[in-house]
Amino acid sequence: MSENSVLIVGSVALDTVETPTGKVERALGGAAVYSSVAASFFAPVKVVGVVGEDFPKEHLDFLASRKIDTKGIQIIPGGKTFHWAGSYEGDMNQANTKITELNVFQAFSPELPEDYKSSKYVFLANIDPELQLKVLDQVPGAKLTACDTMNFWISSKKDALLKVLKRVDIVFINDAEVRQLTGITNITRAASVIHELGPKYVIVKKGEHGAVMYCNESMCFAAASYPLEEVTDPTGAGDSFAGGFMGYIASVGEITDINIRKAVIYGSTMASYNVQDFSLDMFKRLTLSQIDTRYDEFRQIVHFESMI
Amino acid sequence: MSENSVLIVGSVALDTVETPTGKVERALGGAAVYSSVAASFFAPVKVVGVVGEDFPKEHLDFLASRKIDTKGIQIIPGGKTFHWAGSYEGDMNQANTKITELNVFQAFSPELPEDYKSSKYVFLANIDPELQLKVLDQVPGAKLTACDTMNFWISSKKDALLKVLKRVDIVFINDAEVRQLTGITNITRAASVIHELGPKYVIVKKGEHGAVMYCNESMCFAAASYPLEEVTDPTGAGDSFAGGFMGYIASVGEITDINIRKAVIYGSTMASYNVQDFSLDMFKRLTLSQIDTRYDEFRQIVHFESMI
Repeated sequence: MSENSVLIVGSVALDTVETPTGKVERALGGAAVYSSVAASFFAPVKVVGVVGEDFPKEHLDFLASRKIDTKGIQIIPGGKTFHWAGSYEGDMNQANTKITELNVFQAFSPELPEDYKSSKYVFLANIDPELQLKVLDQVPGAKLTACDTMNFWISSKKDALLKVLKRVDIVFINDAEVRQLTGITNITRAASVIHELGPKYVIVKKGEHGAVMYCNESMCFAAASYPLEEVTDPTGAGDSFAGGFMGYIASVGEITDINIRKAVIYGSTMASYNVQDFSLDMFKRLTLSQIDTRYDEFRQIVHFESMI
Repeated sequence: MSENSVLIVGSVALDTVETPTGKVERALGGAAVYSSVAASFFAPVKVVGVVGEDFPKEHLDFLASRKIDTKGIQIIPGGKTFHWAGSYEGDMNQANTKITELNVFQAFSPELPEDYKSSKYVFLANIDPELQLKVLDQVPGAKLTACDTMNFWISSKKDALLKVLKRVDIVFINDAEVRQLTGITNITRAASVIHELGPKYVIVKKGEHGAVMYCNESMCFAAASYPLEEVTDPTGAGDSFAGGFMGYIASVGEITDINIRKAVIYGSTMASYNVQDFSLDMFKRLTLSQIDTRYDEFRQIVHFESMI
């Protein structure tokens, strides 16, 4: 049963977000939530996180409705859920953080329920790399492991992060973080340096410019971003990307070069849908047929030989 | 004979360029030179420009060796050639201009030799849009016309530029210029606005992030950039792109959607080779077989379905 399920560990949050098109207050968010819901369109998901007693039950019901196993989400009695507030302007490539109230997330220490430990596909969303290592210790039989990270850990916990990179198969990382981690401006060369640190696949997320993947000693794949005329809220785009990627690869089970490429496109598809509305609102109404349609559009957008 | 030749009008210059990897002084440059040489790998080229008496004969000999018709390059007795000096740092996406000595280029007024006027493929490199209009008046039978422009003309000669856009089939423009021209941050929406101004194809150059093309009411094509681990000198990348594009499309003659896409990839190929050395040095040793190899690599880089 756990064979093709995806284990996801990370933040569960309430987000207050303002963009040029609107605002939401204490809406469902968090890296583990975005990635779990994105993955759930393709494969069963088991999620690990922590919330406070204030976390609305409707959110847990929504995750359950997506067949996401939420028993790994600890509810701390009397505690308050992680709350992030931020805004986006202009090209919306960067968030301006206004409030970070870690609350119960501050003491988060991921303990996997017994039946989670046989998970074959593991995504370590952006959390303290020491906790990522702790999770890896609990899934010795994993077939494919991936992590995300952020600027804060690169500067404050680099040693632990390097240990994580040595142990994961895939790292999802954005272009600014690639430069920060390596001190190299050229993304291709920087990605090759990260590849040497351990991960077989280095997947660089570039927002509106798509994603590039470094593998087998070379930059092997470039994916365009979907050409949206309006982005409503970019929060969770990277997590939706990783979730769609992991869910798809778990659903096919075979980790081949071509499947990894397709997984990048499914990841791009999920990210592009996610940013079309606030919070998880777009995923709440998204259908499999819409996912297939956009995947096909990605083919149309990049091909330059006659299609058969 | 003129059937499949490309007419190119623009600057011929001597460039002093400094990058993190080196420096050249008064080396061959100019938009018309980069684009003509790039186009010459695919089709016959006729170039129009102006130089001073100081312009080294070896440069004209080089252009002639590429079968470029240079009788449209006026040599002004006693005049000095346009000289540009600049440097690039960091991600090299932007030039820091140090010197712009227009010299004979200041009074440039393109008069086409009689046998140039039947040209079917016309590329108006970055010059005063009023001069671009003057060229368009001289090639009434053109089958495909394209222009480039820059921030200076967008702010100082917007009306003339809008007239050019109404009359050309294709505009090559970079992402910053797209935003400047439209006042819109979202590139997809901004490109759709430029599309409404006239050009059937709006090709947005994004440097290290590749290029996207807007056509038929939608963003129809996205091309990755070639993943170079080192860029030696980005000068002339956009012009090489446009030249490769125009040369290829002239060589096939049929302006179809698929040929336009291939032309973008050949443009990307020429741009990526050009930046691997200073001035035109890479083009001086480039072979057709190297061009084919890189074109195939672009296919490898973007495909995500099994290749046949």
